[in-house]
Formats: sequence, C-alpha cells, structure tokens
Amino acid sequence: MARHSKKRSAKAGLPPGTLVHIGEKKTAASHVMLVEYDENGARESQVATAELADKIKLARGTIWVNLNGLGDIGIMEQIGACFNLHPLVLEDIFNTEQRSKLEDYGDYLYVVLKTFVYEKDGPEERLSSDQISLVIGKNFVLSFLETNGFQFEAVRERLRSGKGQILKLGADFLMYSLIDAIVDSYFVILERLDEKTEALETELISNPLPRTLHAIYRLKRENVFLRRSLWPLREVINSLQRGDSPLMTSNTLLYLRDVYDHTIHIIESVESLRDLTSGMLDIYISSISYRISAVMKVLTVITTIFMPLTLIAGIYGMNFKHLPGLDWDWGFFTVLGIMAAISVGMLALFRRKKWL
Amino acid sequence: MARHSKKRSAKAGLPPGTLVHIGEKKTAASHVMLVEYDENGARESQVATAELADKIKLARGTIWVNLNGLGDIGIMEQIGACFNLHPLVLEDIFNTEQRSKLEDYGDYLYVVLKTFVYEKDGPEERLSSDQISLVIGKNFVLSFLETNGFQFEAVRERLRSGKGQILKLGADFLMYSLIDAIVDSYFVILERLDEKTEALETELISNPLPRTLHAIYRLKRENVFLRRSLWPLREVINSLQRGDSPLMTSNTLLYLRDVYDHTIHIIESVESLRDLTSGMLDIYISSISYRISAVMKVLTVITTIFMPLTLIAGIYGMNFKHLPGLDWDWGFFTVLGIMAAISVGMLALFRRKKWL
Amino acid sequence: MARHSKKRSAKAGLPPGTLVHIGEKKTAASHVMLVEYDENGARESQVATAELADKIKLARGTIWVNLNGLGDIGIMEQIGACFNLHPLVLEDIFNTEQRSKLEDYGDYLYVVLKTFVYEKDGPEERLSSDQISLVIGKNFVLSFLETNGFQFEAVRERLRSGKGQILKLGADFLMYSLIDAIVDSYFVILERLDEKTEALETELISNPLPRTLHAIYRLKRENVFLRRSLWPLREVINSLQRGDSPLMTSNTLLYLRDVYDHTIHIIESVESLRDLTSGMLDIYISSISYRISAVMKVLTVITTIFMPLTLIAGIYGMNFKHLPGLDWDWGFFTVLGIMAAISVGMLALFRRKKWL
Amino acid sequence: MARHSKKRSAKAGLPPGTLVHIGEKKTAASHVMLVEYDENGARESQVATAELADKIKLARGTIWVNLNGLGDIGIMEQIGACFNLHPLVLEDIFNTEQRSKLEDYGDYLYVVLKTFVYEKDGPEERLSSDQISLVIGKNFVLSFLETNGFQFEAVRERLRSGKGQILKLGADFLMYSLIDAIVDSYFVILERLDEKTEALETELISNPLPRTLHAIYRLKRENVFLRRSLWPLREVINSLQRGDSPLMTSNTLLYLRDVYDHTIHIIESVESLRDLTSGMLDIYISSISYRISAVMKVLTVITTIFMPLTLIAGIYGMNFKHLPGLDWDWGFFTVLGIMAAISVGMLALFRRKKWL
Amino acid sequence: MARHSKKRSAKAGLPPGTLVHIGEKKTAASHVMLVEYDENGARESQVATAELADKIKLARGTIWVNLNGLGDIGIMEQIGACFNLHPLVLEDIFNTEQRSKLEDYGDYLYVVLKTFVYEKDGPEERLSSDQISLVIGKNFVLSFLETNGFQFEAVRERLRSGKGQILKLGADFLMYSLIDAIVDSYFVILERLDEKTEALETELISNPLPRTLHAIYRLKRENVFLRRSLWPLREVINSLQRGDSPLMTSNTLLYLRDVYDHTIHIIESVESLRDLTSGMLDIYISSISYRISAVMKVLTVITTIFMPLTLIAGIYGMNFKHLPGLDWDWGFFTVLGIMAAISVGMLALFRRKKWL
Repeated sequence: MARHSKKRSAKAGLPPGTLVHIGEKKTAASHVMLVEYDENGARESQVATAELADKIKLARGTIWVNLNGLGDIGIMEQIGACFNLHPLVLEDIFNTEQRSKLEDYGDYLYVVLKTFVYEKDGPEERLSSDQISLVIGKNFVLSFLETNGFQFEAVRERLRSGKGQILKLGADFLMYSLIDAIVDSYFVILERLDEKTEALETELISNPLPRTLHAIYRLKRENVFLRRSLWPLREVINSLQRGDSPLMTSNTLLYLRDVYDHTIHIIESVESLRDLTSGMLDIYISSISYRISAVMKVLTVITTIFMPLTLIAGIYGMNFKHLPGLDWDWGFFTVLGIMAAISVGMLALFRRKKWL
Repeated sequence: MARHSKKRSAKAGLPPGTLVHIGEKKTAASHVMLVEYDENGARESQVATAELADKIKLARGTIWVNLNGLGDIGIMEQIGACFNLHPLVLEDIFNTEQRSKLEDYGDYLYVVLKTFVYEKDGPEERLSSDQISLVIGKNFVLSFLETNGFQFEAVRERLRSGKGQILKLGADFLMYSLIDAIVDSYFVILERLDEKTEALETELISNPLPRTLHAIYRLKRENVFLRRSLWPLREVINSLQRGDSPLMTSNTLLYLRDVYDHTIHIIESVESLRDLTSGMLDIYISSISYRISAVMKVLTVITTIFMPLTLIAGIYGMNFKHLPGLDWDWGFFTVLGIMAAISVGMLALFRRKKWL
Repeated sequence: MARHSKKRSAKAGLPPGTLVHIGEKKTAASHVMLVEYDENGARESQVATAELADKIKLARGTIWVNLNGLGDIGIMEQIGACFNLHPLVLEDIFNTEQRSKLEDYGDYLYVVLKTFVYEKDGPEERLSSDQISLVIGKNFVLSFLETNGFQFEAVRERLRSGKGQILKLGADFLMYSLIDAIVDSYFVILERLDEKTEALETELISNPLPRTLHAIYRLKRENVFLRRSLWPLREVINSLQRGDSPLMTSNTLLYLRDVYDHTIHIIESVESLRDLTSGMLDIYISSISYRISAVMKVLTVITTIFMPLTLIAGIYGMNFKHLPGLDWDWGFFTVLGIMAAISVGMLALFRRKKWL
Repeated sequence: MARHSKKRSAKAGLPPGTLVHIGEKKTAASHVMLVEYDENGARESQVATAELADKIKLARGTIWVNLNGLGDIGIMEQIGACFNLHPLVLEDIFNTEQRSKLEDYGDYLYVVLKTFVYEKDGPEERLSSDQISLVIGKNFVLSFLETNGFQFEAVRERLRSGKGQILKLGADFLMYSLIDAIVDSYFVILERLDEKTEALETELISNPLPRTLHAIYRLKRENVFLRRSLWPLREVINSLQRGDSPLMTSNTLLYLRDVYDHTIHIIESVESLRDLTSGMLDIYISSISYRISAVMKVLTVITTIFMPLTLIAGIYGMNFKHLPGLDWDWGFFTVLGIMAAISVGMLALFRRKKWL
Repeated sequence: MARHSKKRSAKAGLPPGTLVHIGEKKTAASHVMLVEYDENGARESQVATAELADKIKLARGTIWVNLNGLGDIGIMEQIGACFNLHPLVLEDIFNTEQRSKLEDYGDYLYVVLKTFVYEKDGPEERLSSDQISLVIGKNFVLSFLETNGFQFEAVRERLRSGKGQILKLGADFLMYSLIDAIVDSYFVILERLDEKTEALETELISNPLPRTLHAIYRLKRENVFLRRSLWPLREVINSLQRGDSPLMTSNTLLYLRDVYDHTIHIIESVESLRDLTSGMLDIYISSISYRISAVMKVLTVITTIFMPLTLIAGIYGMNFKHLPGLDWDWGFFTVLGIMAAISVGMLALFRRKKWL
C-alpha cells in the first residue's frame, strides 16, 4: 500500500504522451479478446497482435475489446490508432498509479477505475489495488486491465448466454455492466473488513494485546487506502449518472443511478468503519490504563500489608539487651497475633475502599 | 449491526433486475393487505395471492397495498405487473441492505426507508434495522415490509375510524402519514439512547469499570449505525418536501416540511450524542489515570514511611560487638521513639505536599 | 438537558394537527396580554379568555398578543381562529421540544426560538431551555411563551414610554425587537460560560481533581446543548434578514442584519469554547500523567536508596561465626559511613539525572 | 481574552441605536485628526470638538477623519451628523466587542476590523484585540480607533511625503492603504507565534515540564482567539475585493486582491499552527508516558535485584540452631559470592530484555 | 519551516509596489536565459543585463525568459518594463513568502508556484520550499526562480531536441510544460515521505523510542507544511484548467486537466499521510502504556513473591527466647520448604491470572 507511488517520479521530465509503464507490472503477457454482439448473439475471439487492426475494422454491431496485461506497448498503439485515441489516454492507461477519473473527449469517454484484492504478504495479508481503464464510444467499449479481470467473467457469460437485456442494448449498457461488476466486487472487500472489525472488537474486550493494537493500525491503514480510492470513484459514477454525455442513453442512466447508490453505500460503510477504528484505539488505551490501575492496586495492597509486618519482625530482631517481651513465654505468639490483626485490618480497609 | 452487508456479495455477477433476497429473511410467510378508501370510508381486506391481481383491478378510490414479509417472489411479480413497476424497483425491494433513497420513475416514486428496533442479543440488546419500501403513484400507495410493521397500525386505525383529514386527501397524504409514523418511531430509539447515555454518565462519575468502557463503545457503535442510516433519510425527505414531483400536492408539502423538521431534530440529537460519547471516553481514561495517580501516592507514602524504619530496625539487628546503645536501658524505647518521630515527620511532609 | 426529548414519543400515531403538550409544563396558568399601538401611543391590557376574540376584533393599529403559559388549549384554539392559523402551527406551538425554525405560510411567518436559563439542580446548576413561538402577520405579532418571558419586559417598557422608533414602525419592527431581546439574553449565558471556563482553567493549572474533570464534562455537555440550539437559530435569522418575505420592510432588514451578526458572534464564541474545552481535557490528562511520573520518581528514589542500605544491615545481621569486622571497634561506624556514602552517591546520581 | 464579552449583556433591553460603550475603555481622551488631500498635497490638522463640523464642511479633495479614543459620545454624534451615518453604525462603533464585518449602506461602506497586540499580564503576556471601524464614502474615509493606532502612522507619513500613488488616487485607495497597514501588522503577531511554537517544540523534546504544558494551552487559546477573529476578516476583505460596491474602483480592487491573499496566508498559518499545537499536546503526553515507563523499569530492576539478596541475608539471619554453613569459615564469603552472582545474572537478564 | 514568515513584517508600512526581497536570499547572482522558438527550432542564449531589453525586442516566435536568482532588482525592473508588468507583480515576485496563486491581469497571467526540496539541517533533514513565479502572455513566458531550477532542465532539453509537440504549440503549452515539470517534482517528495512513513511504522511496532516520537512529530510538521502549500496550488491549477483565460488554448486545457489530476492525487496522498501520522501517535502512546502495564506486572510479581518470604525470614530472626522450631534439627529446612511452597503457589496463581 505504502508502495503506491513508487516509480512515479521516473516520469518526471518526459514529454506528455510518452508511453511508460508506471507501477508494478502484474502480468507479463498481454491477451486481447474481441467480442462483437448485436440482438442476435455474440461472437467472442482471442486475437493475435498481428491481425488486431483488421479484425476490428471488420467487426459489426457493438464491439468490446478487452486487453489483459499492459506489458505490450505495440498492441496499445494499434488499438489507439484504430479508435483514434488521444495520446494522453494511452499514456494514462499505462500509468497504473492514478486515481479514478472520468474524462470526456467528445467522441468517447475515458474512465479509470480501481479494483481491490487481498494479497498474501508473509503471515499477513495486504490490500492492493489494480487499475482498470475503460474507453466507451458510440458502438465500442475498450477495457484495459493489469490482471486477468475475474470480475468481468460474469458479464462475458451473460453475453454468451444472451441472458438479460445486454444483447439488446448498446455500448453504454455494456459499460454499465462492467462498472457494476467492479462495484459489486467491492462488497467482498467490505465484508472482509466487517469480519476483521468484529474479530478485533471481540479481542479488544476479552484480552487486548500488542498484536491487537497492530491489527487496529493495519485496519486503519486499509481504511485510509480505501477512502482515498473510493471518493474519486464516487465523483466518476456521479458524473456518469448525471447524463452529461450524449453517449449515455436514458435507460442506462437509471441503472447507473443504481450503481451510484451502491457506491455511496460502500463509502458510508467505510466511513463508519473509520469511526469504529478510532473508537477501538480509544478503547485499547483505556483498557490498558484500567489494567495498570488494577495491577497497581494489587502491588499497593501487598506492600501495605507486608511492610508493617516486616518492620515488626525487624524490631524484635534488634539486638537490644533490654527488649520487653523477648523473655515472655507467649511473646512470640503475641507478636504473631498482632501481625495477623494488622493483616486482617488492612484487608478490611482495602475491601471498604473497593480495592479488592 | 456488523452483519449488515452479509450476503450482499452473493449478487455479484447477476444481471440487473434479478430478484434475489439480500439480508436476513425476517418473516417466513407474506401477507398482503388491501385498503381502498375515499371520502366516504375505507374497506380493508386480507388478499390471497391468487386473487390479488383481480382485486387490485376492481379497486376504487385510493388504494393501499401493504405486503408484510418478503419471502414470496411470486406475489412481488404480480404486484409489479399490476402497477407496472420497473425491474430495478422489484430488485431493490428484495435487497434489504440498502440505504434510504428516493427514486423518481415519472409515474411513481420509489422510497426506501429504515426502521430501528432493539433486539435481545444474549445479555445485551442490539440495535437492528428493517427496511420499508414505499411506492406511490397517482392513486395508490404500495408498502413492502420485512416484518409486521407495528408502526403502521395507527395509520390503519385512522383510516378505519375516518379521524383527521386522511380520507379526504389522496395517496400523497397517505404516504406522508406512513413516513410520519416511521419517523415518529425513531423518537422511541432516541429516548432509549438518551436514557443509556444518562446511565453511563452516572456510572462514569461514580465508579468507572471496564464494563462502563464497553458500554460506551457499544453506544458509539449504535451511534455510528444510526448516523449512517439517518443522513440518507434526511436527503429523501428533503427532496420529497421540495416538491420536485407533481405527485405531491402543496397541502401535503406543508406536512412533509414538518416531518423534515423532525428528521433534522433527530439527526442533531444523534450528532450531539456523538460528541457526548467521545467526551465520555476522554472522561473514562482521565478518571482511570487519576485513580492510578492516587494509588501510586498511597504506595509511595507507605514505602517512604516504612523503608527508613525497617532500615533502623535492621541496623540495630546487626551483630556488631560494639554497637552503641544496645546495652543502654532505654535504648529500645529511644529507637522506637526515633521511628515514631520519623513516621510523624513523613506524614506531615506528605500532608503539606497535599498527597494525603 | 438529557431529558429534552422525553414524552415526544407519546405523539407517535396521532394524526397531524392534534394539540398535545410535549415537554415539561412550566407554568400552570395562561395569561394573555394584548397591546395595540400606533404612532400616537400604546394600549396594554390583560385579557380574559372569554373576551379574547372580541377584543382582538376591535383592536386598531399594530396588535401584539402575548401568551404566557401553554396550559390552556382553549385559548390557543381561539387565537388560532382569530388569526386563521394553520393546524400545524398550533400543534407546533404546543410541542416545546422543537428546534428553532422559520416557516412561511404566505400571510404570516411562524418562528420558533429558544431561550436559555440556568436552573438550580441540587448542588449544581443546569442549563435548560424554553421555547418561544412568534407569529407575525401584516399588522400583528403573536408570541407564545412557556414561562413568564422576562426578556420581553424591556420591549413592553419601550412601547409604553414610546422611546425609540418602535411606535412609528410596524409589526415587523416589533418582531425584530422581540428577537433582538431574545438574542441579547444569550450574552448573559455566554458570559456565565466564560466565567466557568476561566475558573476551570485556573483550577486545572493549580490542582486538577476529579471534580475538575466532571466540571469540564458538564461544560462540554452544555456546549453540545447550546450548539445544537444555536445553529438552527442562525438559519432562522439568516432567512429573515435575506428578506425573502414581503412582510419584512427594508428598514427592518438592516436591523435584522445586526441581530444576525450578534448570532454569528455568539455561535463563534460557543465554537471557540468547544475548542478550549477539548483542550482542557487534554491538559487534565497530561497533568495527571505528569503527576504520576513525579510520584513514580519519588518512589523509585526512596526505594533505590533504602534497598541497598537495608541489604547491608541484613548482611551484618547474618549469624555467621566468621564475619569480618564484627569484632572490630569501628566496624559499626564504618558500616554506617558506607551507608551514608551510598545514600549521598545515589542522591547525587538522581540530581544529575534531574529526578530531584 | 476570556473577558471579551464582558459587559455586552449590559445592552440587553435597550432600543437599537442607543450609544453605549461596550468593552474596556482604552484611552480616556478622544483626539480627532483631519487630513484633506488631493494630487497637489495633503493638509493635516488636529481638530477640537467645537470646530469639527465647520472644518469638515470646508474641507476639499479627499477627506480622512481619524478618531483616537471612543470616550466622547458628543464627537461621535457630530461626525455622524456631518456624514449622515445610520444610528446602527454609530452604535456599532461604540460596541468594541464585535466581529469583523462589512456593511453596505449604499452611500458608504461600514467596515469593522480588529488589531492584535501582546500586552504584559503579570509574568505572562496576553494577546488582546482592539477594534477599528472604517467608514468609506465617495470622497471621505472615517476611522475610529480605541487606541492610538500606531499602525496608521506609516500611511500618514506616506500622505505627508506624497510617496507612491496615494495622493493621486481616491478615498477607496486610502481605505485600502489603511486595511493593508492593519493586515501587515498581523504578520508581527504571526512571527511572535512562530517563535513561541519553535521554543515550545525545543522544550518539548528536551525536557517537558508542567509549564511547557501550560504554555501549549496558552498557545492553543491564543490560536482559538485569532481564528475566531480572522475568519470574519477574510469574509470582509473577500467581499471588498469582489467589487460589489461601486465605491471601489477597479484599480483598487487589484490591490485589495493582494490584501486578500495576505489574509488567506495568515489564516492558513494560524490553521497550521493549530495542527501543530494539537500535535504538541500528543507529544507531551507521549513523552510523559515514556518517562513513566522508563522510571518504572528502573524501579523494577532495583527491586528485582535487591529483594532476593535481602531475602538471603534474612535467611542467614534466622536464629535456627542448626543452620548449615554458619560455622563454616568461608560461609560468609560464599553467601556474598552467591549474592554477587545473582546480581550479575539479573543485570544480564535485564540487559538482554533491553531494559538497561 | 517555522522560519517561513520571518522578515515579512519588515514590509509593514511600505507603499504597495515597493520592491523588497522577502525571505532568505538563496543565490547571490542572477542569470537570465532567453529562449526563442518556433516550429523550426529553438535558439537559447545567456543574456547580460545591459543587452536584455534589446534582445527581447528583437526576439521572434515564442519567447521564454528565465531568471535564476532574485538578487538583482535592476534586471527585474527592465523585464517589468519590457513586458509592461504591473508593479504589484514585480513586488510579489520578490516576496518569496507567498502562497501559490493565479492572478489574471488581462494581457497576461501571473502564477506563483512552490517547489520543495529536502535540505540537510544538522543530523536531520528539513523540508524547505522555493518560490517560482511564472508570467504568461500571448507569445511569451517569463519564469523567475530563487534557485537554479533543476526542474526546468528537462523542458529546456525538449526545446533543444524538438522532441514532442512543444515547438509546434504556443506559450500556453510551454507554461503547461513548466508547471507539469514542477508538479512531477512533487512525486519525489511524496515518495520520500512514503519511505519515512514505512520506516516509522516498522520502528513503531518493533521498538518505540522517544526518537520515534520526535520523528512522528517531524513528519506531522512536514505534512502540515505541505498541506498548506498544496491546497492553494490546487486552486491555481483548477482555475487554469477551467479555461477562464483566453490565453489558454483548448488543446492545452486537456493537458492542464491531466496536471490537475496529478495535483489532486498528491493532495490526497498527503491527506492520507496525515491520517496515518495521527494514527501512529495513538499507536505510540498505546504501546508505551502496554509496556508500562507489562513492567508493572513484573514488579508486582517480584514483590508479591519476595515480601512474604522476607517476612518469614524476619520472623525467625526475632530474638524471642521461646520461638518454636529454632532448636529443631529440621527447622531450617522446613522453613525453606515453606518458602519454596509459597513461591511456587504464587507463581501458579500469577500464571493462572495470565500475568506471566
């Protein structure tokens, strides 16, 4: 997470429009998948780099070009040429360290979104994000993914089976479907966070330990990370659903309003989580303080009882020749009795003070 | 509470408009109640699934269809068909994990609201929420509830008795009455929270314990939960009372303005509570710190008094042959006297330092 | 304060417009006072319930009807009928648990305001609020108070004496005068809070005690209470001074701008107080922590000095037959010397470490 | 500072426009200075109360009337009559407990500003504020100061010397110059605050003491005081520079934009200071906690080392007849050796645990 | 950092437009570099003060005048005269203690920006900022830098080599390139902050020390410093990219939108960092509290075990004549056995209480 802007500075000084991959390269090879569909059905094909331009030119109906893996600059340039994309768009697709945004280039919209996934990181897991770029025009949708994009599988399946309205509606509905799939995938992360929060709350109340503290901090960090990513997303979907672009039909706007609602729901959940996390930190420190006060009391009770007794023993251990009672037969037991009385008195006092 | 978004992820990948029940199923059976009314009176009837469509077609005047229990998808589809509802509305009614919202579909408005109730949860109680969906058109109101909806009983009673203006006014006034009933029910929760807060304040000042701390945290969590639910509600009622929709008559708008005011009042109370809760956490930790400092002082006083005395006793317990005073008749009592003087001196010192 | 929404839930389920007194009944009897005035002077009279309607009909010039005590529903209904008030207005006047608000009913404005007073509550005092409702029309002002409304005495006096412009100007200027009187009364509360804050600051720095802590919390609670009441007030006076209503003349608007300024001044003072209160809590806990560290140091110094000495005494108290020095004439004093040297050395060490 | 609203309540109940001095009276005598200037030069004269009205009538070019000391109500009434000021303006000039504000009376603008100064207050210094009222019309500027207004000396000097454009430009540029002089004087306060902050940071890191804590709190209080005064100032200068009033020429607007920038700069500095102050409080308490933990460790180390040794000495001090080793020649040294070994072992253990 | 407004007060009282250097003088000598370019190429030349005005008059195409070092007022006045700059602009260029701003003077825009750099400051490094002023007109860009401006080297290189579109586009694109270079340089600072944060997080979890605390505070201070500088930057770039000025062509606006995005990204990162820093402070104090509670437990365990044993040894060290068991052969070992039993019992008790 903290590594998010690494290598970004490598671009300083380059002219705009230079294609440089910013961020971790996630998959080595690039795969292009082309889907053409209309009311009658969908045709899906893996396309090799060489024949990409031709295939696109021949495509009919609504076209969806999906690119997995951003390693291959050549493919990007071909796609850019086919769909007449602005150099800044191509540059941004390669810069995977961006915030979500929507840019209207007139003929097409450029949308940057983020997906989240928990990755193993030693004994812990860490939340990392991948970038998905969408370009939507009159009759095409382009999607560029760093990884394999499991989120889109369901949409592809729906295209194949022709279930729902997706074949009947145009490119804007396809874009909605892709965005909806991405936003739906956030709920998985949200549920994971909820589980973690609940587990931490239990641990916090039963037995707070340093690792509880570190877990709270990690939760806070993930929360900060999510908030930073989700607020721009909100803006993106809001401007989409406001219908500023003629590319969005009014039917799709209804659906986008729905996605917008989900986004707000997610953001509000993350904000609530933030409040709870900060509350947990307060509870932690309060619990530890209480524990200190409890241990402190035990120590004070012990000390207060034994110190006078030890003093008495010390007094009768002094080597004075004339020490009253040393010769007395019951002297020893009398002293023990006094000691016992002092102990009992002290204990009663502490009980009355509610220390025990 | 923390369980609120469970199972939401189950919907990921499904086409929009698919009817899937999200959230806990609260009541197994669904009951449909149909009320028709005009100026002359109201007719109320329980309707079986089979005859629902017919009954609705034959209904005269203003119609109120109330559905308790969301278990039966068939009924929903019938109602949807009768009133020509958009698939997204039907989908949203089943998704009981939504935020409050108002959607204007032209012919009708779709409103999602939340009600709150304290449920027993082991020795504790926990705040849970149910969803109520309202659809209001030219001359009908549809209400969909997860549970039995005791909040609406008073409205039904008013329809039966014809008290107030309710029979004379249209569907929009009925909707207002339902929303008003829901908002009124929030005051019960608010008073419960106020009581809890007062009880905690007393406990906090008299004797702060770990369970006080956990109660404060629970209060905070309930507060977070309420805030998240109430802010969208505010937006909903605000857009209703702004009168954007022609379905709202100007007379009803006056009443909605009143409900809006109540909503703001409730939100402000919850916000105040939030401030107080965070203040209570600070008081808790300050109190514990004070207690630590008090216990600490007792310990120090005890130690400071007894250590010198024990040392003196130890010195006169050394086995030196030539130890001045050991043979002296009053030696023992002189030493005891010195010890007493030291104790008194120490106590005086501590008193002057205000430690005692 | 925490009792503010008590009994509000009692209204749940009643039709709107039902007159139910919400909140504590403050005065048993209701008194109606009628003032008529024009440029030539003012006539003031106590009016009995029976003759109220007649008197109002006969009144000339600008009319001010002031009602103290909300116990008598009959009077309210009469007044409502005379001035043609909406049922919601009457209902709201009786509901004394509202936030400040301004409602424009076309012919008249309905304004709800709050006044504050410190009431004795056992050994403490507590801040409580009363509600004042104002209705202002073309040539009349109605004021409804829970209590005797000492704030209005000065306005009445000005009417009697004809001092200032009040007789020459219309109902809107009278309303301004009443609001100004109420806002002026807030400065008394503000000065009380300032005094408390100063007293607490002094106590905090000289000798922080648990009661200081509780006083800070009470201050915070009063602050929360005031903030919640003052923010809506700001909105009310702001919309008045914007001059949206034709009932306000431009001359009065200038004066209202002045009151608005006072309101902002008061709110900013309360906000500042809030910052200071939260700062005081931090100071309290920091002071206590410092005290713990100081006590801790004393304890450690005492322990560190006496433990080695006691050990030495213990060593020379062992019963070994062959223990070097026991027979030596200066053995005892040598050991005492060593003890003294150790003490001095320790003290020097602690002084160098700045612990003493 | 906490005394700011004292005596404000004394005005409650008076009709608007009554001239009552609110706030501390700072200077007994009032001095009126009249400056007339045009392109050719400036004439400056001290004016006695009696001849004030005449002098003003005869004045040519742009007129600047400056009043130091608000003690004399008579002068104010004369000035008010000469320039035809609204009673509310006169009242506000006397009320020195106001927030900064800009009021547009059509023919003239009324501006209230604040200046700050550090006053000796026993061993400490305290930040206090004076009020400056400006009235600007077509060809005159009136300035009313509680104190001697050293801030304006430079402007007067510039008028005398004719340096810069000030003689060529009108009353609005003079007003800008006065406001600029006031805002420039804030930088002195800001630099003082910066110095204090730096000094506190050093003290905080080297040796945090209770007086550090109180200094932080005083800093916070000054910060709260400044913030409350500066935010309204920002609004004032912003509405001036927006050029809503025809009295402002477009040339002056450019300069006002510059002052506005300085104001924002000052506010942002104060806001940053606020963040730092709250950070310092956290550092303070963290440092003290760390110190407690360090002292605690020393105590524990001492106790842990000496308690076993004392026990051993005690054991060999028991008076059993048959106690192995007492008769042995090397018994004493063996026991001492064991004690030394235990000490060394303990120390090694603590070192390994990084406690030493 | 805390030194940022030093000497600013030196300007108080001077007429506007006076050229006074505010802030540290960073480089003694001033170097002027003149670049002229059009589609065919760029000519770059170092210009002596004497010939500056002539050279500028003769220049063709788009002109870029870059001034490094603000020491020489004469050069500034020449440049001001050549390009007809307002006195306030010249004054502001010399005042290097300003916030970022954009001022539209009609014929040209004046932009103030900040660059950041880490400077060695004893063993620590400190974040300091330099000011860069840009003036952009129809066909010229002026840049004024306090230091050598390494950030612009890449732009100069691009002009020389003719790479990218820079030669073909006008002055506004050059300005974009310069701003882009500055914003890109922020990423270096951001990455440095990220590294520091990560290092601190590790230290915080493994072994929190006072220097960790001070590092957190320094991080917070840097964060406060950056926030204060970046928010105005955001406004500047936002108003540039909104295209309010006719000097910006629509092509450049697209690129500015991109820079705006980077700015938002940087600000959001800094805001996130702020959240994390405040979280780290909480973790620090919580960790220390936990450590205190742990040390406390060790102390209590030691005391609780050894005090009873010492008492027993003391009891058998009393000099009573009749003390049972002293003569018994196994008395000593019995007592030792009892001591061992007590120790083991105590340890078992503590283990059960989870203190060990």
